[in-house]
Amino acid sequence: MAIKMGIIGFGGMGRFHQWMLESVDGIEVVAAHDIQEEALEEARKRGMRAYEKREDLLADPEIQLVLVATPNEFHKPYVIEAARAGKHVISEKPVTFTVADLDEMDAAAKEAGVIFTVHHNRRWDRDFLKVRKAIQTGMLGKVYCIESRVTGSGGLIYGWRAYKEHAGGMIYDWGVHLIDQILQIYPDNRLKTVFAKTFHVHNSDVDDYFRAEMLFDNGVEAHVEMGTFLLIPAPRWYVQGDNATMMMESFDENKGKIVLSRYMTDEVGNTIVNTPSGPTRTLAPQPADRFEDVPLPEVEGEPKWFYLNLIDAINGKCAPAVTIPTVRRTLAAMEKIFESAQTGRSVECDL
Amino acid sequence: MAIKMGIIGFGGMGRFHQWMLESVDGIEVVAAHDIQEEALEEARKRGMRAYEKREDLLADPEIQLVLVATPNEFHKPYVIEAARAGKHVISEKPVTFTVADLDEMDAAAKEAGVIFTVHHNRRWDRDFLKVRKAIQTGMLGKVYCIESRVTGSGGLIYGWRAYKEHAGGMIYDWGVHLIDQILQIYPDNRLKTVFAKTFHVHNSDVDDYFRAEMLFDNGVEAHVEMGTFLLIPAPRWYVQGDNATMMMESFDENKGKIVLSRYMTDEVGNTIVNTPSGPTRTLAPQPADRFEDVPLPEVEGEPKWFYLNLIDAINGKCAPAVTIPTVRRTLAAMEKIFESAQTGRSVECDL
Repeated sequence: MAIKMGIIGFGGMGRFHQWMLESVDGIEVVAAHDIQEEALEEARKRGMRAYEKREDLLADPEIQLVLVATPNEFHKPYVIEAARAGKHVISEKPVTFTVADLDEMDAAAKEAGVIFTVHHNRRWDRDFLKVRKAIQTGMLGKVYCIESRVTGSGGLIYGWRAYKEHAGGMIYDWGVHLIDQILQIYPDNRLKTVFAKTFHVHNSDVDDYFRAEMLFDNGVEAHVEMGTFLLIPAPRWYVQGDNATMMMESFDENKGKIVLSRYMTDEVGNTIVNTPSGPTRTLAPQPADRFEDVPLPEVEGEPKWFYLNLIDAINGKCAPAVTIPTVRRTLAAMEKIFESAQTGRSVECDL
Repeated sequence: MAIKMGIIGFGGMGRFHQWMLESVDGIEVVAAHDIQEEALEEARKRGMRAYEKREDLLADPEIQLVLVATPNEFHKPYVIEAARAGKHVISEKPVTFTVADLDEMDAAAKEAGVIFTVHHNRRWDRDFLKVRKAIQTGMLGKVYCIESRVTGSGGLIYGWRAYKEHAGGMIYDWGVHLIDQILQIYPDNRLKTVFAKTFHVHNSDVDDYFRAEMLFDNGVEAHVEMGTFLLIPAPRWYVQGDNATMMMESFDENKGKIVLSRYMTDEVGNTIVNTPSGPTRTLAPQPADRFEDVPLPEVEGEPKWFYLNLIDAINGKCAPAVTIPTVRRTLAAMEKIFESAQTGRSVECDL
């Protein structure tokens, strides 16, 4: 029998979850709560029970699983309420703002004996899965730099995400995904240093562009960047290894390439190339047989796997895929990134 | 009458200077010194006097101007020798390694009453001139981020540049240009913070890849990067302003574009776009009339202007274009960048 789910916060993301779950056997979204009448009306249209009061949704005995998809500042109190009401609970990201707050949420869930997880759906983005697989299987050789970028062009930010009081801004909105993905590539390494800067290009209240460097104990530098006003798209991923370079243009898992070096040579060419401003050997073209395009790796997975796993976890078959320690690591890294942006200095850590 | 010039160090760069100067009226390269017989033979073939001993070139009464184009560690002693011999003197870049050393060189030139300048030829690269003009004239709006990248694919480094004892490596070889160009964009702002990391991808003795962030007092972050093993080319320049984005593909001044936002809007679109993993309003496409490609700015200048200016300077008509205070600022920034890479921390400065 399908697990019955209620959604607290039936805005854009809440509705996306309900829509996606229509194609997932094993979970049925039966109710929603929102403070806006328009959202309740939408829930009714979709055949769900519409609760004007949060307490009423949490008191609904049929509901086993609650998704909290409100503006960010409400994740913590509502997750704790849901857990105390005996519901398994999913928080939208960012789960909250400090590790200390997350620990309180986790403790409440443990005390109540319910599952608590976070919708880090982009761990199943196939562009990311291909990058991670290429890195982890050694296809690229020893990787030393990863660039992860997301670029919009509108400039302004829609809705509550444009306001500091709701913990808006692009580090909380997109940064959390990009930082989380990088940490998922290196689960067993330690993040040692971050250096970040936030910008207010067209939004005075929250960051609408950020750049962050993340340095790991294995010598890798990861660069994450998100901007709302980049009018020439930049590649989604650019990964450098000592045997290959990988580029993914966009979220489209098929738009990318890997260029591999078929051999290294001990002989350094003495071919001088004249740039407009002077000669260089470093930029000289290489022999035609040296490089080859190789196919992107095959991967399995899609965002709804988050839910397929959760169904199994609720049925006692496995642990939730998005564990709180991994969420905690991402949040701790974000705290350091904010600290770096605020102080203007690099921040050391061990995460 | 043409100024007679002698070259100390007749390797790749020395020969490039001699070749370029064949098309510059006003300077005649009459002699070279090198420690390698092959280089002396090449000088003779080009109709120049070939000196086995440096002292003999410096004692040549016809020579008014000396270029030092040796491996980097010899720039300082040979520039000082040339100045003391009463010659105007050009040093190849990097002029030396510390500001203290540069000050000694400058003092020697002043004491001797000769002109001392540095071959920062890439201040006349037309890709750079277009970027600088677009920024300085406000075409892009208020600029907040500049990325400057140079990428090779060979991996190994040719000749003495692969060795630490000759101050090889890519920060000294290419970084000096990229850092200098950024500082030339903002002559009247202060560089406040740098954060940098160097890598040894295929060269154990010297850096063959580096990334550096340079933060200015006007809020701009400049990113400079150079690698010898990037198998998918990255754009030479990527510049973000609050009204436009500019990209230059390569050193080719014509391969680039500027995309301008024709208007901003207070209305934030509520258009939801579904990426493979979820909905987003931030990445929604904008109305077709909002953006337009505008032509790259027109610029004047080419690398030989370095010499045309120097001829005028030697003839007392103007000051040298590459002044020692600007060279000193670049060198000071490089010292901070090396310090950051060595300590793994951001370094504050006021340059």
